[in-house]
Amino acid sequence: MPATPPLNATTRAFGERVRARRLELGLSQEAAAARCGIHWTQLGKVERGQRSLRLETIVKIAEGLDVDAGKLVSGLPTPA
Amino acid sequence: MPATPPLNATTRAFGERVRARRLELGLSQEAAAARCGIHWTQLGKVERGQRSLRLETIVKIAEGLDVDAGKLVSGLPTPA
Repeated sequence: MPATPPLNATTRAFGERVRARRLELGLSQEAAAARCGIHWTQLGKVERGQRSLRLETIVKIAEGLDVDAGKLVSGLPTPA
Repeated sequence: MPATPPLNATTRAFGERVRARRLELGLSQEAAAARCGIHWTQLGKVERGQRSLRLETIVKIAEGLDVDAGKLVSGLPTPA
């Protein structure tokens, strides 16, 4: 099955940060998703930049990963 | 016409920050929206917390208002 590409540079960079933070905490996608209050398949898509998140989901993920949402979003590249 | 309430605490707080930054720059909603590459009616809804933004739109608004997206998102309250 070919890998689905990230939606754009913004979602890709955001997803890489989420994944890095999850690994820093030593959490599986399942465990991290439960902490964030989202489904683990959604978290997987977020990490691969395949999902365009809403503001509220960004805040929930940041809380679940015990990191400030601002840190996850600061200086992200533009979508284009 | 009764005012439409904000969607939740997250969108309300975000919108207040966007509005404060726009006024800091002395821009009308129309001028600010043009800089952000969104429609001014959309920016109005964002400022009133009536719109749930996507990550990419957050980045575009931050760029248009010459502020780091992290600053707009840092420490926002949870949706609930």
